Amino acid sequence: MGADLGRTFERNWDRYLTEWQELLRFPSISAERAHDGDCLACAEWLVRRLAALGFASQLLPTSGKPAVFAERQGAPASPVVLFYGHYDVQPVDPLAEWVSPPFAPAWRDGRLYARGAQDNKGQLLFFLKAVETLRRQGGPMPTVKIVIEGEEESGSVGMLRSLDGWRARLKADVLMVTDTGQVASHAPTIVMGLRGIIHLTAALSGPRHDLHSGVHGGRAPNAAQGMAELVACLHHPDGRVAVAGFYDSVAPPTPRERSLAGQVPFDAAAYESQTGVPPVAGEPEFSPVERVGFRPSVDVNGIHAGFGGEGSKTVIPARAVAKITARLVPAQDPARCLNAIIAHLQAHTPAGLRLEIPEQCAAGGALRLDPDSALVAKAKAVLDALGAGPTAFLWDGASVPVVAALSQVSGAEPLLVGFGREEDRVHAPNESFSREQFRLGFLYAAAMLTAL
Amino acid sequence: MGADLGRTFERNWDRYLTEWQELLRFPSISAERAHDGDCLACAEWLVRRLAALGFASQLLPTSGKPAVFAERQGAPASPVVLFYGHYDVQPVDPLAEWVSPPFAPAWRDGRLYARGAQDNKGQLLFFLKAVETLRRQGGPMPTVKIVIEGEEESGSVGMLRSLDGWRARLKADVLMVTDTGQVASHAPTIVMGLRGIIHLTAALSGPRHDLHSGVHGGRAPNAAQGMAELVACLHHPDGRVAVAGFYDSVAPPTPRERSLAGQVPFDAAAYESQTGVPPVAGEPEFSPVERVGFRPSVDVNGIHAGFGGEGSKTVIPARAVAKITARLVPAQDPARCLNAIIAHLQAHTPAGLRLEIPEQCAAGGALRLDPDSALVAKAKAVLDALGAGPTAFLWDGASVPVVAALSQVSGAEPLLVGFGREEDRVHAPNESFSREQFRLGFLYAAAMLTAL
Repeated sequence: MGADLGRTFERNWDRYLTEWQELLRFPSISAERAHDGDCLACAEWLVRRLAALGFASQLLPTSGKPAVFAERQGAPASPVVLFYGHYDVQPVDPLAEWVSPPFAPAWRDGRLYARGAQDNKGQLLFFLKAVETLRRQGGPMPTVKIVIEGEEESGSVGMLRSLDGWRARLKADVLMVTDTGQVASHAPTIVMGLRGIIHLTAALSGPRHDLHSGVHGGRAPNAAQGMAELVACLHHPDGRVAVAGFYDSVAPPTPRERSLAGQVPFDAAAYESQTGVPPVAGEPEFSPVERVGFRPSVDVNGIHAGFGGEGSKTVIPARAVAKITARLVPAQDPARCLNAIIAHLQAHTPAGLRLEIPEQCAAGGALRLDPDSALVAKAKAVLDALGAGPTAFLWDGASVPVVAALSQVSGAEPLLVGFGREEDRVHAPNESFSREQFRLGFLYAAAMLTAL
Repeated sequence: MGADLGRTFERNWDRYLTEWQELLRFPSISAERAHDGDCLACAEWLVRRLAALGFASQLLPTSGKPAVFAERQGAPASPVVLFYGHYDVQPVDPLAEWVSPPFAPAWRDGRLYARGAQDNKGQLLFFLKAVETLRRQGGPMPTVKIVIEGEEESGSVGMLRSLDGWRARLKADVLMVTDTGQVASHAPTIVMGLRGIIHLTAALSGPRHDLHSGVHGGRAPNAAQGMAELVACLHHPDGRVAVAGFYDSVAPPTPRERSLAGQVPFDAAAYESQTGVPPVAGEPEFSPVERVGFRPSVDVNGIHAGFGGEGSKTVIPARAVAKITARLVPAQDPARCLNAIIAHLQAHTPAGLRLEIPEQCAAGGALRLDPDSALVAKAKAVLDALGAGPTAFLWDGASVPVVAALSQVSGAEPLLVGFGREEDRVHAPNESFSREQFRLGFLYAAAMLTAL
């Protein structure tokens, strides 16, 4: 079977590449209204492709961009696989840094360069090509449902709002997602966890307008100083989050999880040379890998108040704003954590200043999968058989709120295996994806669907 | 004498007004290079006027705008009076808010409206008119030296650099400054103190570029959080400055100072309705008037780091900047305080972040005058005799570094009496100064010069 699939890939590669380039020519940037028409054209292209593969396919309207939905009956007693992907892409700024235009796919040294080459059009297309192959081979196949949304890069707003209404349609046993990466180039990776995310804006008001710091310094409350105190009080000096109730029912990783996560290579010196900082923030009793994979965090994304230019301007700022996000683990309820942080900020607001929360969003919950489930064992066997290195388990610190929501609505067990790598430069200029990564994705998807 | 002066003022008012308007037509904005020629023209106008008054007058070059210097010998054994003023003015933005153009003086309801009408051209001219009057009357007069700089609104940079070279020329017994205000409309005011000022910029660097808060949150040091902690650690929770050594040798006000300062009307409710905040910051064991008049303060003028837009951007900021000033009292050495604050920031810089101080300036020392000096007693008698309300003593929280420097270089005892009021709106659109204020200033200056 593996050798068969490999030959099929070689025989069809030129055609795959042509289709992949076609898909990449749509500038389907969901964040920019000017590209609404391109998003729709891209979605319609996918509907036609899926129809050609024997799927009942259609556009599902949402409050934003439409989602593509397609379904094909498989063997009678087979499990139902729900595949999730997205056809929208990130903006292309800074355009001047692209070696070739972002929507004119260019082949260089075994890689295809274009916005979306990996995220998510490349990783989406290898799945479709695997489905096509299995269908042509005529072997037994599970029922496959496919949902491809058009707003993942803009928060999946429309889809998240629509999910409840799609409950019956999305019912499935396994939720396959390929929109993820590998921990290293020679380590196919199963993502075992994602963190949830909440965000809020804290605005502190003091004087009606900036005051003269000579006339008022040491007397009038200062919004910039107050915001510094508010942000500082979110953490204990030892790195733990200081918000009351934030860690309620949060448990450390199990010994099994710790052991699997400990196999992910992490080199502090390499981390520092890559990011410019040593991995010294956060809770000291957990390793850097565990802190991101198994522990929640509260992060200030920005603070802005008063004067910021050259030289000196002697003001007591009237207003300060902080943007704050928190990453959550499954034991934490997003809405409860958001309220706990807001209550903490309110309780610590310095005298004479007024706190407002102009924006808040309990965007999405976390995901933690069972490393000993039958599905994970199957996926590991499939990945091991690729011969592309030992399979790694990754508890990812990032958040894909739609995955947790889709899993909950569909009742399906998530399986997150993708072939993204650091060098793909997703979200940056000169995004690319290699023939080799596409091939591995194709082989995995076909083998996994067969195994199911 | 008082009645004589009053009659002289009435007789000459039309001429004073004409000259005042002439002086205000020069757009002598020191901060804007385009007005360099206007500044020079204004300085030359003053040199001619002073020559006409019998002064030996000239331009003194500095590294910036020239200063006007003039001198006229008085009675042989009389004290030497050094008068300080400035001919430059603030910029005029926002221009659209001016009812009449800022450099086309307009007379409305007993007030002259123009940029500089009060600050400092009006308060400077009433002094010159007083000198002119005494000279015409031919009575005994002290030796008068006049220095009028052209960069007060831009930090007096050129003049402060030149002062050492002008030491012999500036030698005097009394330094008269009228560039100050009254504590209330019906209270002629002697300013008894000014705070010194230092400023610095603190820049904190973390990651090489903003990091993804999902991948790195709870692991990578965050420059915005670090800056919040640094700014917060500058104060104890009770409002005292937490910098080691900052209060060294700072003494509380004397009982006499406390009693005089206690006579300045301060109404917390009025303060809150005017500024939008209650006067609750700073050291609780001092009154709001004392906190500003007798106590130093550390003020953050701005903080900027990371994302500040709408919605959410999940970054760990790479860099944060804070602008900080401190107001000092005479016991504090500006350079030592600056070093103490920097050392405090360095000692508290969180692990993994790097602190730099790209800008620092020990701009100027403080001034504290003796309420029981013979000069103050004379000034109080002159002001009481104006019949314009009881004389007040003000320990001002603001800083005019050039006054302390001039006092030190000239060896003269400062006497700061001016007639500015809140409604003059200095530095703002529609600046003005009234005939009544000009008249009080004229009467005070003439009587004071006579008393000396």
